[in-house]
Amino acid sequence: MALKNDRFIRALLKQPVDCTPVWMMRQAGRYLPEYRETRAKAGDFLSLCKNTDLATEVTLQPLRRYDFDAAILFSDILTIPDVMGLGLYFSEGEGPKFKKVVRCEKDVADLHAIKTETDLDYVVNAVRSIHSALGGSVPLIGFSGSPWTLATYMVEGQSTKDFRHVKTMAYNTPEIMHALLDKLATAVTEYLNAQIVAGAEVVQIFDTWGGVLSTAAYQEFSLNYMKKIVQGLTRERDGQKIPVILFTKNGGLWLENIADSGADALGLDWTIDIGIARERVGGKVALQGNMDPAMLFANAKRIQSEVKSILGSFGDHPGHVFNLGHGITPNVSPDAVKTFVDSVHELSRR
Amino acid sequence: MALKNDRFIRALLKQPVDCTPVWMMRQAGRYLPEYRETRAKAGDFLSLCKNTDLATEVTLQPLRRYDFDAAILFSDILTIPDVMGLGLYFSEGEGPKFKKVVRCEKDVADLHAIKTETDLDYVVNAVRSIHSALGGSVPLIGFSGSPWTLATYMVEGQSTKDFRHVKTMAYNTPEIMHALLDKLATAVTEYLNAQIVAGAEVVQIFDTWGGVLSTAAYQEFSLNYMKKIVQGLTRERDGQKIPVILFTKNGGLWLENIADSGADALGLDWTIDIGIARERVGGKVALQGNMDPAMLFANAKRIQSEVKSILGSFGDHPGHVFNLGHGITPNVSPDAVKTFVDSVHELSRR
Repeated sequence: MALKNDRFIRALLKQPVDCTPVWMMRQAGRYLPEYRETRAKAGDFLSLCKNTDLATEVTLQPLRRYDFDAAILFSDILTIPDVMGLGLYFSEGEGPKFKKVVRCEKDVADLHAIKTETDLDYVVNAVRSIHSALGGSVPLIGFSGSPWTLATYMVEGQSTKDFRHVKTMAYNTPEIMHALLDKLATAVTEYLNAQIVAGAEVVQIFDTWGGVLSTAAYQEFSLNYMKKIVQGLTRERDGQKIPVILFTKNGGLWLENIADSGADALGLDWTIDIGIARERVGGKVALQGNMDPAMLFANAKRIQSEVKSILGSFGDHPGHVFNLGHGITPNVSPDAVKTFVDSVHELSRR
Repeated sequence: MALKNDRFIRALLKQPVDCTPVWMMRQAGRYLPEYRETRAKAGDFLSLCKNTDLATEVTLQPLRRYDFDAAILFSDILTIPDVMGLGLYFSEGEGPKFKKVVRCEKDVADLHAIKTETDLDYVVNAVRSIHSALGGSVPLIGFSGSPWTLATYMVEGQSTKDFRHVKTMAYNTPEIMHALLDKLATAVTEYLNAQIVAGAEVVQIFDTWGGVLSTAAYQEFSLNYMKKIVQGLTRERDGQKIPVILFTKNGGLWLENIADSGADALGLDWTIDIGIARERVGGKVALQGNMDPAMLFANAKRIQSEVKSILGSFGDHPGHVFNLGHGITPNVSPDAVKTFVDSVHELSRR
């Protein structure tokens, strides 16, 4: 099925576009009243992810309101550790938790190898259903957490501020950490390839917690495994390239290394100036980003001036996908998002 | 009073030293059983800061156990907003809070101008008392939060994850934000100068939250005001230079700009390789840092190898003060700190 709007794919491949494509991380989310309504129907977050119809519905909701140039699979980043045997659950107001944690060699050995088609059939079904519902209007992004990011939750058992247990494992028993990351890299590769088979036209790896590592530890425990995944991904389907985006939050110091990973594009958080980022790596990869999500609390004029400033800093080059530097914050007004999306298209029109 | 150990000052001024000086952010803290005991005696955190004898006692505790090359005033970073009229208090398990918040022009106008000697006499008394108790054994560091960091708490009213209100003010009404930051820069300058008069031999500005800003916003709302403070500080006392250290957590992207501030040294968090940082700014300023605080959860051998690696990366140049990349975590074992401090001295001995 040919895409009616392939601006996003073209920008990721550094091809010319009529205007800069835009989407938002967490664009299907709590800032939308219709999302909150569907979510209430589904019950908890995981039930929403597992219900094919409702997951499809929330994925499409933001596209009905805004001219986004891509849809992104609605799912959780912790689906893989869940079916590896850890038992994911959400406790109100405290975020994700696991019934079992991974702390020693035996815990790693006990993890199940996964087969996405059967173990995570709800994800594959959601990709198929969303892809079909989109009908080629815009590309569909599949995604996964990075091995390091998944490992932080699996070792800590929940969200953490000091990353105590996962770093203790990395520093004291790196061989156990590498065994865990190796299993995860294999699982993530298989998981993303299954999403590609089911219809994803682009995949993104979210490395939410790579930025809490030192430069050396980032290379060893996070980037190395993302590289391994990139090498194992299906990069073409029916003659169409499937671009890969790597996003390490707080990874601005390591852009050159990330650009060497073999990915087509890097996601940038808002702390780095996108023009400087382009000078550092623009010859090699496309860049995705990078407005501060908190800018959406500002008035329309200020949002427009920020969009203009980011477009200006990137300059008139191929290879820019506009996005926020991180997921949209729940309390943002839906009107601010409209201002944001429309300004990107209007101010970048060639 | 001449210092018996001036290694720390010499390193900050890029003069030769016999071995690399070391201290730790939050070295007087909860990882020490004697600290927890004194803290229990004082009641809450603020009462401990306000009790001259007990504040002196906890400042000296880590120096009795370890060969630290500096002491740091025991105090809170929110003393200034407290006496400006916001009413600081601590609610158990939730961190610092203010009774009043700053959200509009009038709130900024209502803030009191402060005179440290009278409004914050407990801080001045603590500096005098600690300085006298140290008897010149090691230098005493005075400190303050940066204007931007103080503003985040004053506008949010408490700790925050999304910096929603403070960023909304910065983006929507920058003139109000600048009026607030201007008042804070004046207050911080006066506050640090009073600490210098009272006996501080070095001062450090903690910019804990500068790293949540975009590159442009960091310059405008954080770095500019730290520069202003640096320009207004007393830089010499009795013929002895008083070095200034700026520490922006997650400021690795902006080291060149921070090095241009007029400060003598930059504090580095653990995410940047200190050798790369030295190449970028080493000609201009000394560097302080930068071991991952979580490395103190590792075994002695691993801590030693990390210290060696950081020393090796910095190389045989003047201008290195060893430190953690952020404050020490409460659950660390006191033995790990001994390993850390002793390795720095032993492995760097000229």
